[in-house]
Amino acid sequence: MKIAIMGAAGYSGIELVRILSFHPQVEITVITSSTFKNKRLSDVYPEFRERLNLYFEDEEPSSIINRCEAVFLALPAEVSLVVAEEFLKFNRLVIDLSGAFRLKDKTLYKDWYGFEHTNSVLLKQAVYGIPELFKEKISSARFVANPGCYPTAVILAAAPALARDIVYSEIIVDAKSGVSGRGRKVDLAGIFCEINENMYAYKIENHQHVPEIESVLSDFSKSKINVLFVPQIVPLERGILANVYMPLKQKDIDVDDIIDIYKDFYKNQPFIRILPKGVTPQVKSVSRTNFCDISIFVEKNTLLVLSAIDNLVKGAAGQAVQNFNIMAGWNEEEALL
Amino acid sequence: MKIAIMGAAGYSGIELVRILSFHPQVEITVITSSTFKNKRLSDVYPEFRERLNLYFEDEEPSSIINRCEAVFLALPAEVSLVVAEEFLKFNRLVIDLSGAFRLKDKTLYKDWYGFEHTNSVLLKQAVYGIPELFKEKISSARFVANPGCYPTAVILAAAPALARDIVYSEIIVDAKSGVSGRGRKVDLAGIFCEINENMYAYKIENHQHVPEIESVLSDFSKSKINVLFVPQIVPLERGILANVYMPLKQKDIDVDDIIDIYKDFYKNQPFIRILPKGVTPQVKSVSRTNFCDISIFVEKNTLLVLSAIDNLVKGAAGQAVQNFNIMAGWNEEEALL
Amino acid sequence: MKIAIMGAAGYSGIELVRILSFHPQVEITVITSSTFKNKRLSDVYPEFRERLNLYFEDEEPSSIINRCEAVFLALPAEVSLVVAEEFLKFNRLVIDLSGAFRLKDKTLYKDWYGFEHTNSVLLKQAVYGIPELFKEKISSARFVANPGCYPTAVILAAAPALARDIVYSEIIVDAKSGVSGRGRKVDLAGIFCEINENMYAYKIENHQHVPEIESVLSDFSKSKINVLFVPQIVPLERGILANVYMPLKQKDIDVDDIIDIYKDFYKNQPFIRILPKGVTPQVKSVSRTNFCDISIFVEKNTLLVLSAIDNLVKGAAGQAVQNFNIMAGWNEEEALL
Amino acid sequence: MKIAIMGAAGYSGIELVRILSFHPQVEITVITSSTFKNKRLSDVYPEFRERLNLYFEDEEPSSIINRCEAVFLALPAEVSLVVAEEFLKFNRLVIDLSGAFRLKDKTLYKDWYGFEHTNSVLLKQAVYGIPELFKEKISSARFVANPGCYPTAVILAAAPALARDIVYSEIIVDAKSGVSGRGRKVDLAGIFCEINENMYAYKIENHQHVPEIESVLSDFSKSKINVLFVPQIVPLERGILANVYMPLKQKDIDVDDIIDIYKDFYKNQPFIRILPKGVTPQVKSVSRTNFCDISIFVEKNTLLVLSAIDNLVKGAAGQAVQNFNIMAGWNEEEALL
Repeated sequence: MKIAIMGAAGYSGIELVRILSFHPQVEITVITSSTFKNKRLSDVYPEFRERLNLYFEDEEPSSIINRCEAVFLALPAEVSLVVAEEFLKFNRLVIDLSGAFRLKDKTLYKDWYGFEHTNSVLLKQAVYGIPELFKEKISSARFVANPGCYPTAVILAAAPALARDIVYSEIIVDAKSGVSGRGRKVDLAGIFCEINENMYAYKIENHQHVPEIESVLSDFSKSKINVLFVPQIVPLERGILANVYMPLKQKDIDVDDIIDIYKDFYKNQPFIRILPKGVTPQVKSVSRTNFCDISIFVEKNTLLVLSAIDNLVKGAAGQAVQNFNIMAGWNEEEALL
Repeated sequence: MKIAIMGAAGYSGIELVRILSFHPQVEITVITSSTFKNKRLSDVYPEFRERLNLYFEDEEPSSIINRCEAVFLALPAEVSLVVAEEFLKFNRLVIDLSGAFRLKDKTLYKDWYGFEHTNSVLLKQAVYGIPELFKEKISSARFVANPGCYPTAVILAAAPALARDIVYSEIIVDAKSGVSGRGRKVDLAGIFCEINENMYAYKIENHQHVPEIESVLSDFSKSKINVLFVPQIVPLERGILANVYMPLKQKDIDVDDIIDIYKDFYKNQPFIRILPKGVTPQVKSVSRTNFCDISIFVEKNTLLVLSAIDNLVKGAAGQAVQNFNIMAGWNEEEALL
Repeated sequence: MKIAIMGAAGYSGIELVRILSFHPQVEITVITSSTFKNKRLSDVYPEFRERLNLYFEDEEPSSIINRCEAVFLALPAEVSLVVAEEFLKFNRLVIDLSGAFRLKDKTLYKDWYGFEHTNSVLLKQAVYGIPELFKEKISSARFVANPGCYPTAVILAAAPALARDIVYSEIIVDAKSGVSGRGRKVDLAGIFCEINENMYAYKIENHQHVPEIESVLSDFSKSKINVLFVPQIVPLERGILANVYMPLKQKDIDVDDIIDIYKDFYKNQPFIRILPKGVTPQVKSVSRTNFCDISIFVEKNTLLVLSAIDNLVKGAAGQAVQNFNIMAGWNEEEALL
Repeated sequence: MKIAIMGAAGYSGIELVRILSFHPQVEITVITSSTFKNKRLSDVYPEFRERLNLYFEDEEPSSIINRCEAVFLALPAEVSLVVAEEFLKFNRLVIDLSGAFRLKDKTLYKDWYGFEHTNSVLLKQAVYGIPELFKEKISSARFVANPGCYPTAVILAAAPALARDIVYSEIIVDAKSGVSGRGRKVDLAGIFCEINENMYAYKIENHQHVPEIESVLSDFSKSKINVLFVPQIVPLERGILANVYMPLKQKDIDVDDIIDIYKDFYKNQPFIRILPKGVTPQVKSVSRTNFCDISIFVEKNTLLVLSAIDNLVKGAAGQAVQNFNIMAGWNEEEALL
């Protein structure tokens, strides 16, 4: 299958290139970048020298549509909003890695993304792409909204407890992300000496992943979920560690029971690993993989679920390929193990 | 004043050497190390070459007592337990950086430190050394139990809210520490490639700082405080970021009120900085200083206090010197600004 | 083909496991570790959880020989010295990643490796495994001595210039290595806080890779090559950058000519990339790949060749698999792209 | 003495603020920044909160001259070129940290700095500020050109051997720098994920420090010195390690003799430490200090001198203060130990 990757020069985009270059059923025919258009891929990312002979093209859907059967959009949300429709009109498979179609309630976009959402039809059509929760819908979708990195880690950690109704709806999420989560943007806060030997919380009351986590978990559990979400930057490149604190409804439930609930919930999911009791997930163990490692602790009437992913793989490009595999009817692990 | 530093070759110990070498009223007469005894200081820490001409001596109190008026103990708790008494008998000022005298309830030591505590008299005599809370007691003490690094960050963050009775007693602490918090011990988990590009929680249900935090906060607030404490290792050298989540009693209290409470509580404390609303503390801003930077957030009925310190300075050696200054009747900032 | 990996728990060993687990013609039947024997692979390296169900076995060749057709030895040199023979007796393919069979002159071992070499027969039989120079010999070998990490980077950088006789024989090599080059050993110098924010030269006059580089280059160029070799540790995990300074014989040769010489020399070598004039190799571009990136500069009568590899891949496990592929008659790129 | 710091928001500038804030004879009356003018110091560098109450002012000399007796210029070279003169007219002490007055030959500026140098008078007047070589001149100067970071490390390493005429004039310098050497500039190459786990050479044939090193060493040794200079970026914040390779004139000179030469040459220099034979300098041992640690090796007719400094202290702000102390007639160590 011929595929295009738009916004391929960002960190999620280039991770898509990396993964899909090893995909046996796929040929990458187009990559685009507004910043690097007309440049050779290997001049921007020298690791691809003598491996992949591609040039970044301009971000013009009309010149791309006829050269692909599926497209991955690693674009700013405002751009995806417009571009996705172009490809869908011509019946291409679309996997959008931006936030443009993740929130079902279009009135939220103004506050959280800074633009008015204009496309209710597509918003309804987009399937939220966490395969472990919504595989069936994804398998018949032509349009997937690929989740954010933090939401992936948090939703996978919270969903089984909410599904089994063992916790209340007031959740605290203390999450730490590697620096690639900022994207490849060039700003003072992102230069090496500002981040090295530093760590700090940011956007405590206004991260755009808050409504995504709350709305997906609320829809999923059929109750209004509130999340106090505290994202933090730590000085490493890849990886999210999300600690999800949920007040337990029953005082007599023990940790082994909950581990069993989680194992059962994820029993056919190849990328979820529920760790043995007492073992904590390490970011390094999931780095450059599509795995999500999950640990369960029960203490002081609180269920603490720790969840580790690679923010660029399970938190972005890897999950996008997993969704794509499911949409295309292939083994969901293709190119991901 | 002549001072001795025992256990001077560990990370807290050498930080004491560094700070006290700049102290105008102090002469370091003895440093000890069981590992490096008879070695020159600058052979173990080359930064001191041509600055400080000292040799590590053996850890034998009897040969030290007559050569110092005050002693800092940066020793394992089991060793401090014995050594502290020797110096106190001869009326030396003692600042103990281990956990040996931090818990008032001696029955706790077996479970949390692995030894039976045998010295109730000294346990009672030891003053817990957070100057911002207990300055008066410290000023008349001859024996101070210097707090742990995590407890310093957490107690400073929680104390004002508990003192003003605006929060309930069930507290969640999500804390991240730089790697020097592990000490200078040599083990597989501590080598560079195991920690670089990694992060993880550890000792979730059994860190020895749990009873320290709970008992100090309980004593201080005259109510039983429960802490769910989740320590984490992140790949940087110095710094703790502690996020303290406390359920608010009143729904109508706002963040400005609480910031005022904190500013008022710490109004004469030179090392506490309450940050402006919305600004989060950065570990880099407190690195190599004795400051504790604190931010206040109120969200979803929860008071979130973020607290950043340098684990080796305010979390260990710097606070020890601050305590020592107070005990000696000097300006508490001496050698610390 | 069934293969065994001895010493699989070290950094080179586990990299072999990682690469060979993706090799389509290979089944890993045995992994050994003296430190972790009887432990599950995924308990030591959690990344393999639910991917590879293997246990570390004891390092006893007799129990392994019948379960493999080829063996990779990632063992200390003294151990390989003995073990290699056992497998060769039974006609297994052997790829030894230690230094035990890299030096042809057995009298060198006492000084550089600290043991007397006792096995002249095997020493003669071992083929030094740099495929770009010795592919033919490797293709008919049953026993390959896999090169050291520094020697790989240096020899690939120097060989074309020596082969074309454009430089004199007095070479300076200023080489920097990531920390995984130290192996997974547990010592004070290797813990995080001693290496983070540090860099330094070490073993300037006595690194065991000196005789390896000198003897291979001397044999290859039929003249006595002297190398002033300065290895250095830098605070990153993977990668070697070797700067090789060679005095030019002719003053009128220009950089384009030499680039052409290098391109021609390596024209059929899939893992060597000669970079365009003026572009320097970046460690990140070869990280986790089997590539060696090479740049050529000519300045002040000196030919400067910069060479970058991943010390664990092209500098160890990747090159071992490349050698193995050639020995087995397969495409040398198998499992390496 | 009242002092001003222009360009105080860059990494060298803020290091000046840090050091001078502890200087007992000094009051900082003005700091300037074109980027952050009118902002509070502690809003840009939160570490100064409640320590130093200053605002960045605009870079207008006329409004500053009357408020200072000495000025440090941490400005771009083109700006210093103009600004220095303003302060000198009014007889202020000027320490310029840019390259604007380091090269005596004004024709070099076009090629190496990109501007025509217009001020021969000042160029002649400026004293090159390496106190260990030019202390007398500095002590009577009103205008010092503070050396570059690499030149400081290299010149200190090479000068004694050249002064004693034991080496030839063709020198190779392989130098590695921490990332703060790039300054606080915001560009793609400087963001965390591009530098973390990376290292590479840059500007091999055209770094502006080449003519500085060559001209200072040539003047100093009264012979034409050629330097092949290879700068490299490594993933740490502070520190330069410069390896200086010099061909020995005599074959029978041994390392102990040369160590004695170096010790004698620097015998009254408090910031130079000649390390014992066989001990290599570590960047960490000089980090945040004004020391330069130097090791001597002799191998294969080559004198190798390794030199380590903190690029922001001895390589910039610390040396500037050292020069200032000498100009002002104070102890050169003031505020630097």
